[in-house]
Amino acid sequence: MGGRMRNEAGIAAAIGRLVERFGERLSTSASLREQHGHTLTWIANQPPDAVVFARSEAEVQEIVRICAAEGCPVVPFGAGTSLEGHLNAPYGGVSIDVSAMDAIVAVHPEDLDVVVQPGIRRKALNEQLRDTGLFFPIDPGADATLGGMAATRASGTNAVRYGTMKDTVLSIRAVTASGEIVTTSRRAKKSSTGYDLTRLFVGSEGTLGVITELTIRLSGIPEAIAGGICPFPSVQAAADAVILTIQTGIPVARIELLDEVQVKACNLYSKLDLPETPLLLLEFHGTDAWVAEQSTRFGEIAADLGGGPFTWTTKAEERTKLWTARHDAYWAGLALRPGCQTFSTDVCVPISRLAECIAETKADIEADGLVAPIVGHVGDGNFHVLPLFHPDDTSEIDKVKRFVGRLVERALAMEGTASGEHGVGQGKMKYLEAEHGRAALDAMAAIKQALDPKGIMNPGKIVAS
Amino acid sequence: MGGRMRNEAGIAAAIGRLVERFGERLSTSASLREQHGHTLTWIANQPPDAVVFARSEAEVQEIVRICAAEGCPVVPFGAGTSLEGHLNAPYGGVSIDVSAMDAIVAVHPEDLDVVVQPGIRRKALNEQLRDTGLFFPIDPGADATLGGMAATRASGTNAVRYGTMKDTVLSIRAVTASGEIVTTSRRAKKSSTGYDLTRLFVGSEGTLGVITELTIRLSGIPEAIAGGICPFPSVQAAADAVILTIQTGIPVARIELLDEVQVKACNLYSKLDLPETPLLLLEFHGTDAWVAEQSTRFGEIAADLGGGPFTWTTKAEERTKLWTARHDAYWAGLALRPGCQTFSTDVCVPISRLAECIAETKADIEADGLVAPIVGHVGDGNFHVLPLFHPDDTSEIDKVKRFVGRLVERALAMEGTASGEHGVGQGKMKYLEAEHGRAALDAMAAIKQALDPKGIMNPGKIVAS
Repeated sequence: MGGRMRNEAGIAAAIGRLVERFGERLSTSASLREQHGHTLTWIANQPPDAVVFARSEAEVQEIVRICAAEGCPVVPFGAGTSLEGHLNAPYGGVSIDVSAMDAIVAVHPEDLDVVVQPGIRRKALNEQLRDTGLFFPIDPGADATLGGMAATRASGTNAVRYGTMKDTVLSIRAVTASGEIVTTSRRAKKSSTGYDLTRLFVGSEGTLGVITELTIRLSGIPEAIAGGICPFPSVQAAADAVILTIQTGIPVARIELLDEVQVKACNLYSKLDLPETPLLLLEFHGTDAWVAEQSTRFGEIAADLGGGPFTWTTKAEERTKLWTARHDAYWAGLALRPGCQTFSTDVCVPISRLAECIAETKADIEADGLVAPIVGHVGDGNFHVLPLFHPDDTSEIDKVKRFVGRLVERALAMEGTASGEHGVGQGKMKYLEAEHGRAALDAMAAIKQALDPKGIMNPGKIVAS
Repeated sequence: MGGRMRNEAGIAAAIGRLVERFGERLSTSASLREQHGHTLTWIANQPPDAVVFARSEAEVQEIVRICAAEGCPVVPFGAGTSLEGHLNAPYGGVSIDVSAMDAIVAVHPEDLDVVVQPGIRRKALNEQLRDTGLFFPIDPGADATLGGMAATRASGTNAVRYGTMKDTVLSIRAVTASGEIVTTSRRAKKSSTGYDLTRLFVGSEGTLGVITELTIRLSGIPEAIAGGICPFPSVQAAADAVILTIQTGIPVARIELLDEVQVKACNLYSKLDLPETPLLLLEFHGTDAWVAEQSTRFGEIAADLGGGPFTWTTKAEERTKLWTARHDAYWAGLALRPGCQTFSTDVCVPISRLAECIAETKADIEADGLVAPIVGHVGDGNFHVLPLFHPDDTSEIDKVKRFVGRLVERALAMEGTASGEHGVGQGKMKYLEAEHGRAALDAMAAIKQALDPKGIMNPGKIVAS
């Protein structure tokens, strides 16, 4: 991390001023600080020096201005569900907890958008939107905050149809390193006026500013939803079905792959009796007639490739049951070897390379003697391999780390990316140069330097030391 | 423009070196220079000092490196169809004409993408793609180059369904001001690794680099297309139909408004007998059954609002005839007052404000005694008012300029944008601060300064002097 040192004096001065201003809403308790660092995966916890709970944009601005004046790092915190060490404070500093800023500011049903504070979580947002007939479609595994999802450019199972946070965020308000409030865009659906600051902030992981408000595009709750499960003789056949489905323009809303290892795990964990062969789980959104047509067409594609039968239903309870396997996949995978943990991988490749990438990965798993179920958002070419390891077995951890390195290299060699949806944080910084090349990385670093010359915004993440 | 001066010595030195390297592929002829400046609208022509015709990315890189070393501005040139003075050279310099770089580099039908050189035009691209069953959906009025369309964040009539260049460009290769080649993204459909350089280059209007290659997302050619025209008693009723159509999730592919003035113009110009009342022109893409269902549903919405009858057809010839009015709208508008010219406006507002914005604009047109047909991509809240003026009548020109200023102010007051699809260029720089605020503009200027510290990339556009 470039030999950067902690600015002890600046951090102490900032915390002193923040205590004076915020009183008990600033905490330096060890447990709270630890909880506001990274806690979810193998990446070691690096707690901030203090946590301050903000209640408004004006307060966030005050906090950032104090920290900027003292040269004290700030790390935005929402739900704490990020996976790559985004919340760690390698140079110390202050965690700005915006979880109490969780209000809906305005709903515009005619424009299909909603203005929210950054601390609102996706499930609460959808509960509060229910009466409008609209919903927010992006669904990462965790019940993350909207601010965090924008910051990490999150996606999930619906992205194949509804896009990612890149497509769903219309505008962002953020406090920048200079303590100014930037509004990245108007609320109009499109614009050609100037640099796309919205997309620059989406995926910037807190390194360019603290998000204080978001305008989010919504979708109409579909009249009808059809869902089903389809078995395939091989991952290749399943991947070919995905390609054909998308190529023929069937607007599939979800198309998820479970490999046979994952299916076995789900059968054990969730007491199911699914065929232990690669499965696609699908969902179609539309009118009754249209989801029936989509389902029938997909069934024909599957049959042509030796898959099926494709059993589908529009009944909500039955769909929920069908999706149990997918929802429990992570915990089912872990239960294959009790006491084990996993690395959360999320490479993404062009879908033409998906079958090849998964096949080579499975061969690698086998050669290494690993247990590693695979589950993926295959409509986007994105899949998760969950290699299990025992946390006390350092040689197994090393083996799994090397496996993950090869997985990323394999994806990059196929024109893919190291991360389809989890982000860079600390965990994937080492892959960035191989993925983007030196010139692109230099451009990113120049942008970071231009917008945060003192390096106080979530330092040690993406390109920033 | 901040008092910046022409760098006479640097420009002369660069041209000298470029002549030596490129011989007859560099021209300083007055007519060619003029043709490579802005020619299409009221903005005065400011020709470059020389035009150089590049045949490859390596040549673009050589040209930029020579110009960078000498401090000579460069202006990328594709088809010359931009509308806001993007191609002018207010500080002189060299126009880099990439129109001969018009090859398809690779088609990936399984991934629904294509890699192209920047000089390929949209119609040629679609002709060459036809056998693949795929098409490129973005259709601005002009037969623009893909590089130019990306640079101006273009859209058009299909954007309501297929998005704009922001959504369609997967990756860009560009020569930056330092003469490096940046690749903005991998070919995977999504990624969370680092700042979104792709979206930063889309809409950057040549101010951050010269685009040398693009990877573009394609769509499957729909099995069936239904199109039709629907009259409405008022613009308000038409706008309400647009809102309801989108709110209920009908994935309309095109939904265009012609106001009664535009319809009258089209009837005169194209010898049609359309009802001289606000019209919506629509297109639905899908399967036979699905486009029929969409058309029927739209017809019901229209009828509920006092509009209709909605007559639609899936026959290609009949659809083409229905769309004649839309295709000829620009020329039909001009023909209302022979010898006149028009300002090309393109404000965009949240669709909930569309009817109000158009109504106030029409009242303004009437109060001013202007002739100004309206035609728009109303599914996105984007519309064009074409106020006619006689080029010799300076008081009329002033009146029209003031009208356009009020139009932009009105759109901004309704949370809209000064430009939905034409871009900033020179023509709209004056509106940027009102639209984005000082902090956002400062951020844009900081990014420009970071990536082009000498200011050689298309200076005098967007935020750059």
